[in-house]
Amino acid sequence: MSKFLSKSHLSLKAYVPGEQPTDKRYIKLNTNESPFPPSKKAIAAVKREATSLNLYSDPSAKSLKRAIAKYYGVQEKEVTVTNGSDEALAFCFMAFCDSTTPMAFFDVTYGFYKVYAELFGIPSEIVKLKDDFTADFDGLKKTKGNVIIANPNAQTGIFESLEAVEDLIKSKKDKVVIIDEAYCDFGGESAANLVKKYENAIVVSTFSKSRNLAGGRIGFVIANENLILDLEKMKYSFNPYSLGRIPLVAAKAAIEDVGYFKECVGEIKKAREYTVAALKELGFEVLPSLANFVLCKTDKMDGKSLYLALKEKGILCRYLGEERIKDYVRITIGTKKQMRTLIEVLGEIL
Amino acid sequence: MSKFLSKSHLSLKAYVPGEQPTDKRYIKLNTNESPFPPSKKAIAAVKREATSLNLYSDPSAKSLKRAIAKYYGVQEKEVTVTNGSDEALAFCFMAFCDSTTPMAFFDVTYGFYKVYAELFGIPSEIVKLKDDFTADFDGLKKTKGNVIIANPNAQTGIFESLEAVEDLIKSKKDKVVIIDEAYCDFGGESAANLVKKYENAIVVSTFSKSRNLAGGRIGFVIANENLILDLEKMKYSFNPYSLGRIPLVAAKAAIEDVGYFKECVGEIKKAREYTVAALKELGFEVLPSLANFVLCKTDKMDGKSLYLALKEKGILCRYLGEERIKDYVRITIGTKKQMRTLIEVLGEIL
Repeated sequence: MSKFLSKSHLSLKAYVPGEQPTDKRYIKLNTNESPFPPSKKAIAAVKREATSLNLYSDPSAKSLKRAIAKYYGVQEKEVTVTNGSDEALAFCFMAFCDSTTPMAFFDVTYGFYKVYAELFGIPSEIVKLKDDFTADFDGLKKTKGNVIIANPNAQTGIFESLEAVEDLIKSKKDKVVIIDEAYCDFGGESAANLVKKYENAIVVSTFSKSRNLAGGRIGFVIANENLILDLEKMKYSFNPYSLGRIPLVAAKAAIEDVGYFKECVGEIKKAREYTVAALKELGFEVLPSLANFVLCKTDKMDGKSLYLALKEKGILCRYLGEERIKDYVRITIGTKKQMRTLIEVLGEIL
Repeated sequence: MSKFLSKSHLSLKAYVPGEQPTDKRYIKLNTNESPFPPSKKAIAAVKREATSLNLYSDPSAKSLKRAIAKYYGVQEKEVTVTNGSDEALAFCFMAFCDSTTPMAFFDVTYGFYKVYAELFGIPSEIVKLKDDFTADFDGLKKTKGNVIIANPNAQTGIFESLEAVEDLIKSKKDKVVIIDEAYCDFGGESAANLVKKYENAIVVSTFSKSRNLAGGRIGFVIANENLILDLEKMKYSFNPYSLGRIPLVAAKAAIEDVGYFKECVGEIKKAREYTVAALKELGFEVLPSLANFVLCKTDKMDGKSLYLALKEKGILCRYLGEERIKDYVRITIGTKKQMRTLIEVLGEIL
């Protein structure tokens, strides 16, 4: 830290992304990436675009917005795109919250919500998940501020019904309700169509997980056109060209390749089913996940020791260490083959 | 605008990027891009990386930082990289300014400085350039806040000597002095080495102009390691993966291809020399530019009419319309051939 850092940031704790060790080749099950390569069409689009990188990208991102709008059955003006969904989330905090307008979220969820609140000087209203890690919507409804939930929830993988989400949106009509659907394609149901009915609903999603483009950095938002205008005001006041030419063409090709998307998501679901059953057979308690990861624990070993033992054997999973889930590890669902190796190794460790 | 937008943003005016019309093929001299394709090595690196986009990029950007550090003769820990230099500038405003720590800058300069100040609720201290559009450093030294200058200056292209810059840094030792060197490679001299001597100096630059990668979105910062830690705190609290895999490898290849870089910059300088002479011959007043653009005006036509007349003839330049430069147009230096066409067309128009 330098002596020049603004005092407002002295207590700020940045987000810690999953480790990327390079000491050896790991089976990487720690950052919820897709184990499958991008769509061939996306790869071809990237290669075609490489020679044009001397020219700026289209800041309005028209053709990508159109493709996303078409996929979700909404209008182009109800969509905006960002440099990964993290940037979309940041813009939501910047646009709709301030020192007197808090953001409410659950105690166990995506760790970045808390970081954004601190970064921008926004009060947090933290509501505890129930004992079984399902959502306490009544608790959320009682908060004063805007609301953000991840659905399926980050860390737990638990999906809450669209009815419950709609009910929350209705109960908060003077505030925005943000639904972070990063993991929605693996079995959840998107709230995208609710944006036509509710002027306060915001759906945020990403191409990093189900679209196999984590390293491409593409996020998007679906919301009422006025909310989109507000978010674009943030974008054009922060980084108008936040998406380069490559993410724009890669994402367009990926969302248009519906066949490959379904194939990859189908494989992940099958591998998840296998993994959950096998983990339970090994005596694990596994939270019911509709995401591309599972949160699980065993009586035989604490979470941190299990994470370290797996790492020792060449498998990376994520130990989050937060109080309520300190006994758990989070395991990304990879290929069936990777998951078989995981189960074998767990059998050896335990 | 929605009714949910924070009141703090009601008067915020976003930055307006240069137009990207698609109605016909233009000679594009309006956004200071390079007219030359990226380095062949950068193109090859992009193509190689395309199949790995399902995996996150390295958030620490180690190998790109190392390449930049090597080029500038600084240490890796004195470098950070961002999603274009706009993001670097935003992080500087976020990290070092706040509601009681203003940012000082010139009245005619990169338009984004004012936008960042407004976006983050930071007071601006605006100092007028002298009548000949050169820097009033005495004016800047009298301000209370941090300072940001573009050198060469945006819009004017005028480069101020490193001695004057060093003097400014020395005079402001309790504040940071940010030198935005987006256009420095076209004839200016970088202040990068001053960061070893002064703990308050920050150099910001980009791969968008002299490295032919505007559409790749890569910016970087060179500064004392403690300032870099502060800026990375912002990055890790905003978007840890703000650079995807493609920008990381493209930029590394581009900065290592010193031969091609020198060739392209050399061509731009020659084309600039030709353009300035030819414009003067046509009766233009041309500000003395060391950037890849020139700001110029003619008695025969006002700035806006000239911009429109050129657009009509298929040439895009930038009419900025700000009060002090409302008679001027800003013309990017393209290829020699493009500049010859420009001069011919100007001959017809005037």
